[in-house]
Amino acid sequence: MALESVSPARLEAFSDGVIAVIITIMVLELKAPPVDGWVGFRMAAPALLLYLLTFTQVGIYWVNHHYLTDEIQSVSHGMLWANLIFLFNLSLFPFGTAWVAARGLSSFAAALYAVISLLPGLSYTVLSLLIHVGSGPTPPWTRLRQVLSNVLYFSAIPVAYYKPLFSMVLIGTVALLWTLPPEKSLAQRGRQAGTSTLPAEDR
Amino acid sequence: MALESVSPARLEAFSDGVIAVIITIMVLELKAPPVDGWVGFRMAAPALLLYLLTFTQVGIYWVNHHYLTDEIQSVSHGMLWANLIFLFNLSLFPFGTAWVAARGLSSFAAALYAVISLLPGLSYTVLSLLIHVGSGPTPPWTRLRQVLSNVLYFSAIPVAYYKPLFSMVLIGTVALLWTLPPEKSLAQRGRQAGTSTLPAEDR
Amino acid sequence: MALESVSPARLEAFSDGVIAVIITIMVLELKAPPVDGWVGFRMAAPALLLYLLTFTQVGIYWVNHHYLTDEIQSVSHGMLWANLIFLFNLSLFPFGTAWVAARGLSSFAAALYAVISLLPGLSYTVLSLLIHVGSGPTPPWTRLRQVLSNVLYFSAIPVAYYKPLFSMVLIGTVALLWTLPPEKSLAQRGRQAGTSTLPAEDR
Amino acid sequence: MALESVSPARLEAFSDGVIAVIITIMVLELKAPPVDGWVGFRMAAPALLLYLLTFTQVGIYWVNHHYLTDEIQSVSHGMLWANLIFLFNLSLFPFGTAWVAARGLSSFAAALYAVISLLPGLSYTVLSLLIHVGSGPTPPWTRLRQVLSNVLYFSAIPVAYYKPLFSMVLIGTVALLWTLPPEKSLAQRGRQAGTSTLPAEDR
Repeated sequence: MALESVSPARLEAFSDGVIAVIITIMVLELKAPPVDGWVGFRMAAPALLLYLLTFTQVGIYWVNHHYLTDEIQSVSHGMLWANLIFLFNLSLFPFGTAWVAARGLSSFAAALYAVISLLPGLSYTVLSLLIHVGSGPTPPWTRLRQVLSNVLYFSAIPVAYYKPLFSMVLIGTVALLWTLPPEKSLAQRGRQAGTSTLPAEDR
Repeated sequence: MALESVSPARLEAFSDGVIAVIITIMVLELKAPPVDGWVGFRMAAPALLLYLLTFTQVGIYWVNHHYLTDEIQSVSHGMLWANLIFLFNLSLFPFGTAWVAARGLSSFAAALYAVISLLPGLSYTVLSLLIHVGSGPTPPWTRLRQVLSNVLYFSAIPVAYYKPLFSMVLIGTVALLWTLPPEKSLAQRGRQAGTSTLPAEDR
Repeated sequence: MALESVSPARLEAFSDGVIAVIITIMVLELKAPPVDGWVGFRMAAPALLLYLLTFTQVGIYWVNHHYLTDEIQSVSHGMLWANLIFLFNLSLFPFGTAWVAARGLSSFAAALYAVISLLPGLSYTVLSLLIHVGSGPTPPWTRLRQVLSNVLYFSAIPVAYYKPLFSMVLIGTVALLWTLPPEKSLAQRGRQAGTSTLPAEDR
Repeated sequence: MALESVSPARLEAFSDGVIAVIITIMVLELKAPPVDGWVGFRMAAPALLLYLLTFTQVGIYWVNHHYLTDEIQSVSHGMLWANLIFLFNLSLFPFGTAWVAARGLSSFAAALYAVISLLPGLSYTVLSLLIHVGSGPTPPWTRLRQVLSNVLYFSAIPVAYYKPLFSMVLIGTVALLWTLPPEKSLAQRGRQAGTSTLPAEDR
């Protein structure tokens, strides 16, 4: 069922608000260490690096969520809920980050962080599928990256019990993967093609 | 008195901002437990479940608040205040959630959480009545759900003194009730009917 | 100097964002008391009441800031800074609220809260004067309320040393004063008059 | 590569959200001191002054970020990332502020605060260069201020080891520098000139 009263712009504005809060409140967890100077800084450094990784992950979702909502023709009740579930999973990032920062990079902490990275990955894929039902198939390069990301996140869970740092490297690799630019969707290509082939007087 | 200077869009944008902050700052209360591993996770699990319940409740209000503000023809001073009172009540959720997380699911804590669930329920109903004065009656299915929600929230208060978990189940039931799609309002139906019966040249 | 690149809508959106964060983060200060039950609730009650008072004050500024920015024809560099100073002063509310909540309603704490109520009052008046330079005089009922508010806030400072609760009552009185609806500004009246006297074909 | 799906308005709205959260959550670090009265206030005063300085710095970035995004013709993938890096660096301000507030104005703390002031300065300059590739050169007065700011921030690092307070004064000087109004960009001047020379019937 299409909902007239929730436009894609509204869905996006609310998601932007939630993502902006998620991405910034984590900095509140970056406490000043109990000692001043380089000794203190070395104590705070792992938390800073972790914050950088989580910030990058959430930032990537923000960028791609924009590309995705741009595809929406009309918002369905299902999309609203898939989006809320995605946002809920995304909001667990500060919890996972705080756990690793507080308990150190143990196998359990790294595995938990991998699960918390996987959850928004999976729910984003569901949201993406739901949206592309109405707007044509997901472009192949984007679909490949989505599948690859979920596979890497999932592998990071057992890897954490072998070597916790390796699972963080896997998660970081996913982040690097998404810094590459997206391809244009079929809908966008169509729109662009349409624009350039239309005679000037119809524009 | 209708206020020209506050458009429904502005009312909605501010409410969205407040709701986005409410829904996400609660995650700051999800502290890493003092122990690592599954033992620690089991310690954090009730707080996580509680966060899920509260996130769902606030998410539902966000979805329905959109449907509601869509009905507004012009914002009155009364609506502004009814909306502020609603937002205030909604902002008590993190307090209720923190209480249950810190003190455990005692009868008092569950009853308090039920009261804190009832307050935005009641003030949302008032806001809804105020808005529908100007835009036709509340659709019957929505009105039924509003009445049922308030009744269930209210019953959850005494039930908490019998069995705290039962009152949480009642509150969770209300949440499930609102995951069902809304019906279209009369105004929306009129608009839609109007659109489809109008001759093409009048559109 | 008028700034083309910052529209009144942008100024308003940023202010809304800051106000939405200010009004909601305070709830993070509402900690669950160390004891459960009514005993604990009575311990939390003063902080809850204080939160209600501060929420109301910030809510009032939100409502009136909308009326005010509606008057802006073009944003000057001075307005931008007056607005930032106003937002800074407003952002001290959580600090004043936390102080009273932590130290109790001593004379000093009540006087500090009065000063923190006065600061956004004064800077809002400056912002209002600056905006009305370009859009005609402040409507008399609004100007009266502004002057009265600042006088009451100011009186609340010495009164705090006589009886702290009295100064909170004075500040609460200002809040009640602003729940009354605003009058229409000259610009709005002009616009409305203009609309209704224009012949239909010119609209 | 130009991205059709992320408009300058979206980039700006998200940045505004993040900046609004950064600028306001810092107030949560302003804890009520352990003692009431003037003694307590004197204990809180350095943190208040520091908050004022950081608020001013972030406020300046907000103002200038608006001027900058106004220049954007179309958002590239590189701009998106340069903007995210800028926002990440900006989000370290609460950490630097908390460090100085907790550890006092030691040489290390002041140097850290200078580095944290320099990072958004540098990444803002990169973002600015990237945006002006497509929209003509940075206006000279703005470019001068950018270079001067980065030089002063950079000098504040070694100066902190000579006298920590001096480095704070240097950083404060940069803030004062940016309270002066901006010049108009070439694009804006062109647009304005264009508007005023067009015959009335073409507008």
